[in-house]
Amino acid sequence: MNNFEQFEKHESGIRSYCRSFPVIFKQARGAELITSEGKHYIDFLAGAGTLNYGHNHPVLKQALIDYISDDGITHGLDMYSGAKENFLEVFHRVILEPRGFGDYVTQFSGPTGTNSVEAALKLARKVTGRNNVISFTNGFHGCSIGALAVTGNQHHRGAAGVALTDVSRMPYANYFGESANTIAMMDKMLSDPSSGIDKPAAVIVEVVQGEGGLNTASAEWMRKLQKLCRKHGMLMIADDIQAGCGRTGSFFSFEGMGIQPDIITLSKSLSGYGLPFAVVVMRRELDQWEPGEHNGTFRGNNLAFVTAAAAMEHFWTTDEFAKSVQAKGKMVKERMQKIVRKHGPDSLFVKGRGMMVGISCPNGEIASAICQESFQHGLVIETSGNHSQVVKCLAPLIITEEQIDQAMTILDAAFAKVMKEDSAEQAS
Amino acid sequence: MNNFEQFEKHESGIRSYCRSFPVIFKQARGAELITSEGKHYIDFLAGAGTLNYGHNHPVLKQALIDYISDDGITHGLDMYSGAKENFLEVFHRVILEPRGFGDYVTQFSGPTGTNSVEAALKLARKVTGRNNVISFTNGFHGCSIGALAVTGNQHHRGAAGVALTDVSRMPYANYFGESANTIAMMDKMLSDPSSGIDKPAAVIVEVVQGEGGLNTASAEWMRKLQKLCRKHGMLMIADDIQAGCGRTGSFFSFEGMGIQPDIITLSKSLSGYGLPFAVVVMRRELDQWEPGEHNGTFRGNNLAFVTAAAAMEHFWTTDEFAKSVQAKGKMVKERMQKIVRKHGPDSLFVKGRGMMVGISCPNGEIASAICQESFQHGLVIETSGNHSQVVKCLAPLIITEEQIDQAMTILDAAFAKVMKEDSAEQAS
Amino acid sequence: MNNFEQFEKHESGIRSYCRSFPVIFKQARGAELITSEGKHYIDFLAGAGTLNYGHNHPVLKQALIDYISDDGITHGLDMYSGAKENFLEVFHRVILEPRGFGDYVTQFSGPTGTNSVEAALKLARKVTGRNNVISFTNGFHGCSIGALAVTGNQHHRGAAGVALTDVSRMPYANYFGESANTIAMMDKMLSDPSSGIDKPAAVIVEVVQGEGGLNTASAEWMRKLQKLCRKHGMLMIADDIQAGCGRTGSFFSFEGMGIQPDIITLSKSLSGYGLPFAVVVMRRELDQWEPGEHNGTFRGNNLAFVTAAAAMEHFWTTDEFAKSVQAKGKMVKERMQKIVRKHGPDSLFVKGRGMMVGISCPNGEIASAICQESFQHGLVIETSGNHSQVVKCLAPLIITEEQIDQAMTILDAAFAKVMKEDSAEQAS
Amino acid sequence: MNNFEQFEKHESGIRSYCRSFPVIFKQARGAELITSEGKHYIDFLAGAGTLNYGHNHPVLKQALIDYISDDGITHGLDMYSGAKENFLEVFHRVILEPRGFGDYVTQFSGPTGTNSVEAALKLARKVTGRNNVISFTNGFHGCSIGALAVTGNQHHRGAAGVALTDVSRMPYANYFGESANTIAMMDKMLSDPSSGIDKPAAVIVEVVQGEGGLNTASAEWMRKLQKLCRKHGMLMIADDIQAGCGRTGSFFSFEGMGIQPDIITLSKSLSGYGLPFAVVVMRRELDQWEPGEHNGTFRGNNLAFVTAAAAMEHFWTTDEFAKSVQAKGKMVKERMQKIVRKHGPDSLFVKGRGMMVGISCPNGEIASAICQESFQHGLVIETSGNHSQVVKCLAPLIITEEQIDQAMTILDAAFAKVMKEDSAEQAS
Repeated sequence: MNNFEQFEKHESGIRSYCRSFPVIFKQARGAELITSEGKHYIDFLAGAGTLNYGHNHPVLKQALIDYISDDGITHGLDMYSGAKENFLEVFHRVILEPRGFGDYVTQFSGPTGTNSVEAALKLARKVTGRNNVISFTNGFHGCSIGALAVTGNQHHRGAAGVALTDVSRMPYANYFGESANTIAMMDKMLSDPSSGIDKPAAVIVEVVQGEGGLNTASAEWMRKLQKLCRKHGMLMIADDIQAGCGRTGSFFSFEGMGIQPDIITLSKSLSGYGLPFAVVVMRRELDQWEPGEHNGTFRGNNLAFVTAAAAMEHFWTTDEFAKSVQAKGKMVKERMQKIVRKHGPDSLFVKGRGMMVGISCPNGEIASAICQESFQHGLVIETSGNHSQVVKCLAPLIITEEQIDQAMTILDAAFAKVMKEDSAEQAS
Repeated sequence: MNNFEQFEKHESGIRSYCRSFPVIFKQARGAELITSEGKHYIDFLAGAGTLNYGHNHPVLKQALIDYISDDGITHGLDMYSGAKENFLEVFHRVILEPRGFGDYVTQFSGPTGTNSVEAALKLARKVTGRNNVISFTNGFHGCSIGALAVTGNQHHRGAAGVALTDVSRMPYANYFGESANTIAMMDKMLSDPSSGIDKPAAVIVEVVQGEGGLNTASAEWMRKLQKLCRKHGMLMIADDIQAGCGRTGSFFSFEGMGIQPDIITLSKSLSGYGLPFAVVVMRRELDQWEPGEHNGTFRGNNLAFVTAAAAMEHFWTTDEFAKSVQAKGKMVKERMQKIVRKHGPDSLFVKGRGMMVGISCPNGEIASAICQESFQHGLVIETSGNHSQVVKCLAPLIITEEQIDQAMTILDAAFAKVMKEDSAEQAS
Repeated sequence: MNNFEQFEKHESGIRSYCRSFPVIFKQARGAELITSEGKHYIDFLAGAGTLNYGHNHPVLKQALIDYISDDGITHGLDMYSGAKENFLEVFHRVILEPRGFGDYVTQFSGPTGTNSVEAALKLARKVTGRNNVISFTNGFHGCSIGALAVTGNQHHRGAAGVALTDVSRMPYANYFGESANTIAMMDKMLSDPSSGIDKPAAVIVEVVQGEGGLNTASAEWMRKLQKLCRKHGMLMIADDIQAGCGRTGSFFSFEGMGIQPDIITLSKSLSGYGLPFAVVVMRRELDQWEPGEHNGTFRGNNLAFVTAAAAMEHFWTTDEFAKSVQAKGKMVKERMQKIVRKHGPDSLFVKGRGMMVGISCPNGEIASAICQESFQHGLVIETSGNHSQVVKCLAPLIITEEQIDQAMTILDAAFAKVMKEDSAEQAS
Repeated sequence: MNNFEQFEKHESGIRSYCRSFPVIFKQARGAELITSEGKHYIDFLAGAGTLNYGHNHPVLKQALIDYISDDGITHGLDMYSGAKENFLEVFHRVILEPRGFGDYVTQFSGPTGTNSVEAALKLARKVTGRNNVISFTNGFHGCSIGALAVTGNQHHRGAAGVALTDVSRMPYANYFGESANTIAMMDKMLSDPSSGIDKPAAVIVEVVQGEGGLNTASAEWMRKLQKLCRKHGMLMIADDIQAGCGRTGSFFSFEGMGIQPDIITLSKSLSGYGLPFAVVVMRRELDQWEPGEHNGTFRGNNLAFVTAAAAMEHFWTTDEFAKSVQAKGKMVKERMQKIVRKHGPDSLFVKGRGMMVGISCPNGEIASAICQESFQHGLVIETSGNHSQVVKCLAPLIITEEQIDQAMTILDAAFAKVMKEDSAEQAS
C-alpha cells in the first residue's frame, strides 16, 4: 500500500497530477511507468508532451551517463561549452537547415516553456516598438506573468495578482464554427483605426492547442494568419512547445503548411530526456537583443544539450521516425473513432492531429471518470480542454503497437463503463 | 586556438558571459573549469552561485549516475516519485526542522529562481488580497515579467515591453548611508494614508544582494523589517536564491538573525549539481493554493531531487561544512583587505558576507579590467553591482585553501596592474 | 477678414475644430452661429451633441440670468444648494420616474462626459469586485485614462502614454455584418473558462455610436445584450452622453427597447445650455460609494442645475417635443436618402437614428471635402466614423423646418460638386 | 428647519461636503454663504480654493450677464470665439508675459483640474518618450485614472478598480524631517541604473500641498528640484490648481522662487467665478500635440473665458491685490499663532503660506470637532491632511478684515472648547 505521508505533510497543496494518479512512481522505461511497488502503467501522458522519445531512452541515457561520468561541464551559465557547440551544430544541420530555417538563430532562454515565451514576447515588442500582442482563445503559453497574459485559462489567470495587460484576445481557428472566418474578423479589427485593438507586435499561436483541448488550425488558416501578420506588421510567434519535436508527425507542427514563423518557441521534448530546456528560434534580423538583456541562471542546460543532440541525431536524420509517428497516429485515431462509434456516436468525437489526439466527451466529469477508470486498469491518461472534456492521448512517440493496442483496449473498456453509467443516470 | 564559429553563426547575440570568457569549456571538477584545449581555470563565478558544492561533486555524481542507470523516473510533472519523497523527507529533517521551519511546506515551482519568485509573489497577493509589493533598490529577482517588476536593474527592465506594475521601490539597508533609517522611512510612508504607497502584500528582500553588488542587511535591519511587516500586515519573502544554500556560512543567509520569513525562495545551488531546480517554502497557513493554480512542465526535477538530497545528507547533517565555509570566507576577506590596503586604500573597499564577498572599485571599467586581467591568468571571476563596479568572488564553497591562495594571488596581481594603469591615466 | 493671431501665437496646436471652421464666432441663437464679422451659419454640429435645445435658448437664458442676478450660489462643491434640490426633484419627476427609473439615484461626477464614465467604471468594478470591462469596437467614451481604455479611437489611444488595461474589446452590433451574431460570440467567450476573457464587471455601450460613425444597435440586440449581462453577472452601463437628452427622438436613446441599464451616464446636452455638467444615474442597490470616494472640484455645477431643470420642465413634461424631434429626424433622413439616390446610390448610404443621422461616403477625403464645401456656403457640419467617412448631422433639435431645408440644400449641392469631382478623378 | 428629502432620496451616497454642512445654501456674495432660510455663514472653504475672488464678484457677474444677455456664444467646442480670443490676449498680457512665461502656449483641456493633469501627463510622456512619472507623498492631483495614479490619497486610490501604474512615489520636501535631504535621495535613485526607478518623463509637484495638509516646499527645495529635473531629463509639471491664482500672495505659487516649470496646470479659481475651467500652460517647444489628440466636449468654456479675463483685468494689472492678499495672509497667520499659543502650544502648530494656512491638530477627530463647532457659530471651514488633522483656512482672497476677525474669533472659541474637552478626556 502506498504511503503518501511525506507529500501530505511537507508538500504544498498546489500539487495536482499526483491527485489523479495516487501512486509513487519509481522507474520508467519507454512508454512504461513503474511504481515503487512494482506495478506497471502505460504512459499516455508522457510528461504532458515532454517525453516524445519515451522515458530514459537507452541511446540518450548512455550519452548522458558518459557525459556525466567524464565530468563534462554541467552548469556554465551561458558560457561556451563543448556540449552547447555540438547542440548548435546538430540542431542547425539536422533540424533547422532542412526545414528552411537555416538563417535563424537560437536563444537559450531559461529552461522552461514559459520562459521562452517571455523571451519571445519581449523580443517581438522590442523589435516592433509595439506593446500589444494577439493571443488566441484556449491558448496556453505558461504561468509566469508575461506568459500568463497570453494564456487563456481562467484557473491560472485568476492567480495572477496583477493586471495581465497588453494582450488582445482573438478567436482561434473555427472557434465560432467552421463558417465564421476568424481571420477576416481579425483583419477587420486590425484595419479599423477605432476598433480599440492597438497595433500588435505579434500574434502567438499554437498550431495544435494542447492544453486548450486539441483544437487544430488548418494549413489554410495558418497561411491566412501569416498573410495577416505581414499585412499589419505583426510577427508570428509559433509556440511549438507541446506540438513540436515530432508530436504531430513532423519535427515542427507547421511543416508542410507553407508558412514560416518569425519566432519559434520550443521546450518540453526538446531535450529528449525530460530535462528542463527551452529555446527561442528567430529570424536573424530579429535578433536585436543586447547581451544579457533577458537572462537567467539555467539558460543553457548542458545535460540537455547532450541528450537533445543525441536525440536529433538518432531520430531525425532520416524520415523513418516521422513516418512511424504518422502511422501510429493513424492507428490511434482509428481506434478512437471505433470507440466513438461504439460508445457515443452522437456525443463523442475525435480531435487533434498526429500523435496528439483525443476524444471529446460531453463534459469534464465524464472525461475525468474515463481517465480514472483507465488508471485503475493500468493506463496513465489525462484530460485537457476548456472544460477538461477531452480525453487526451499524448503517448510517447516510440510506443510500440502492442502498447497502443493494450492502451486502447483499456480505454475502450473505460468508455464502455462510463458512458453506460452516464446513460443510466440520464435515464433515471 | 578556439573556434567560435558555431556560436557566432547560430546563437543569438544575447549571449553574454561567454563574451567575458572567450574559451570553450569542456569539463569541470570542484573549483576548476577545463577548456576543450585542456587549459585549467579556477572558478570564482561558480555559476553565479549555483555551484556551491563545486562542479560535479563525486558524491552527488555517483548518486546521479546510479539513479539514471537504474532508470529512475526522470520527468514526471508533479506526480509522486520516490526521488521526490526522499527529497521532501531529507529537506525537512536536515534543513527545515533544525532551523525552526518544521511547519513550513514546500512548493516545487518551475525549476528556476525567477519562477519561484513569480510563485511567491502570486501567493502573497492571493493570501493577503493586496496587489502592491515592496522591493528594494538594487534587488535582483529574475527576468520574467512578474519577477522583473521587483528587479531593479534597468538593463533588464528596459526590455520588458510592458508596464511593470504593482511594486513600490524602497531603499535597501544603508542605501542612503548609515545614518538614514530606511525602516523608519518605510514605516512613515506605510502609516500615512495619503503617501501614495498602497498597502503591500509583501516585501521581497535579499539578505545579501548578489547581483546588486554584495550589499548586506544587518540582523538588526532584518529584525526591524520583520517588525514592520507584521505591523502593516505584509508578508516577508526572503529571496535566498543566491545567498542561500550555505553561501554566507549557514544554510539560509538569515540564520541567527532572529527572524522568520513567511516565504522563502530557493534555487541556484539547491540541487547541488547545477541542475535546474527551485522551491518556494512557506508557512503552512499561507499554503492556500488551489491544485495546479501555478504550474509548469518542469516543476519537480527528479534528477535534482536526487542530487539535492545527497548534498543535504553529505554537507548539512553536521556543522562541519558550515564552519569550513566561515573559515574560508574569513580567509578570502582578509586577502581582499590586504589587496585593498596595497592597491587602493582610498578608493577600494571590501563588501559582502561569508563566501559572498568582493572588492568595490571606483568604477565598472576598472572592475571589468581586473576581471579580464585575472582571466588571462587563469581565474574566472565577474563583476556585479549597479555600475558593475564590484569584483565579486563566488568561489565554490568546497574550494581548497590552496586554490583560494592561487586565485587571490592572481587577483592581487590584476589589481596591481589595473590600479597602476588607472593612476597613470589619471595623472596624465 | 479674420485675424487669428491670438490663437496662432498663444494657443496650443492641439486645437482642432477651429481648423475646419476658420472663423471667429461671436454670437449664437437657436440653430445659428454668427461670426464676429456678422456672417451667419446654420449649425449642424451643435457642440457635438451638446446643444440639443439650440444655442442660448431664451427660456433657459432667462432662468440663468435670473439666477445669476439674484446671486444664486454658483460654486458649492457638493454641498446642498437650492438649485441642486430643484434639479433632483425635476429630473426625478420629469425624466426618471416616467421612464421606469424612479428608484435610481444620481451622482454628480465631474462636469464632463469622460468623468462620468470614469465614475461609472469605478463603481461597476467596486460593486462586482471584478476588473475587466467590455467595450465595443468604434465606441467613444472619453480621453482621461480610465475612459480612454474603453474608447476605440487609435488617435486618442496613441497619446495615452501608459498601458490601457482591464478592457476586453468586443464587436458592436453588426460589426461583422448582419449575419454574424455578435452576442452569441460574446456569450461563447464569456462562457468559456479558458477563452482568456476575464469575467467582466460591466459592458459599456452606446445605443448609437456618435463618434464611431452613427452605428446603431437594434432593440433586439440591446435586449440580448442585457440578457447576456444578467447571465454573466455584468452590469450594463449605457453611455447616453451623445445619444441621450432627446437626440434620437426620446429622452434616452434606449427608450422603448425593453431594456433597463444598470448605470447611465449623461452629459453634453444635459444642462441644455452648453454648460459643463454630467451625471451618473444608477440602480439604488449599486450605490455603494463611500462619501467622497470619487470627487472633483466642479461636481455639481449650480448654473447647470438651473438650466437643466428649466430645460426639462420646458421640453419634457409633454410628448410634444419628442414627437417634433421624430418628425424632423424623418425629414432629415428623407432628404439624405434623396441625396444618396441622386449622387451616389452605389457608394453612399444613410446611417443613424432620429436626429443623429448622416451619410456614409466612400472615404474620409470625400466626407471632409463635402463638409468644407458646405462650410463655404454657410453650414457648419462635421464628419465622424472610424475613417471620418460619415457626414454627420447633429442639428439642434429645435431647428426649424426652414433651416433644415436650407441646410439640406447646401449639403445636396456639396455632394453634387464633390461626388462629381471624385468621379472625374477616378475616370482620369 | 431644513428638509433634505430630495437629496436623501435621489442623490448618491457619495455626496460628502454636505454631510459636514447640513444646510441648503441658496445665495452667496463675497465671503458669505446664505442658506435658504436666510442664515449667513462666513466661507473659509471657498469651493476648496475655487472662489479666490469670492462668490459672485460684481465685476465678473456683470461681465457674465452682459455676455449671456448678448447671446454670446456659450458652447463651441474648441472653435475660435471672440471670448477665447480675448482670454488668450489678456492671459498672455496680464499673467504670462510679466512672469516670464511669454513664450508659453495654452491648451484648453477639459474644464477640470483632473483633466488638465491628465493632459499634462500625456504630453510629458509623449514628448520624452518615457512612461514613468514622479509624484510626491501627500500629493493630490485628481481622481480620473491618469491623475489618480499620481494622487496619494488611499481613500481615492482604493476605488480605482484598475492598477495605477507608471508612477514612482517620492518624499515631498521635509517629509522625513528637515534634516533629510529628499532631493539627494531622489538623485541617488535616479542616478542608479539598478535602483528600480525607471527614468521619469516628469515630476508633478504642488508648491503648497492643499489637500495633503498645507505642506510647503521652500524656494531652495524647488530650485534643487528643478536642477534635478534638468539633470535627469525630466519635465517639471507645477500643479498650481489649488495654490495658484493668487492664493499664496502671487498669481503663481512659485513666483520669486527662481524656477520655471515646463508645464503648469491651472483650474479652480482660474475662471474667477467658480465656473468649470482648466488650462495646461507649456513651453512652446513641448507643444507637440497633434490636433485633437486629447479632447473633450467642454474644453474651452466661453462663459469662463469671459469671467477669467475680467478677473485678470480687475485684479492683476497692478500689484495692489497681491499685496492685500499677503497682508491678509499675515493677519490670518498671526491670529492662528495666537490660537496655538493659547490652546495648545505643544500640540498645535500653524502650517501653510499666504492665504493657504491652517492649524495642525493632534488628530483628525479634534480637527473635525473644531470645524463642526465653528459651523455651529457661522463659519464654514474644513480639514485637510493625510489624517484630516489640519483645520484649513481657504478664505476668499477678497474677504474683509472684519470678516477675518469674526471668523478667527469663532475659530478661537471652537479651539478653546474642543481642546478643553480633549484635555478633560485625556485626564479622565
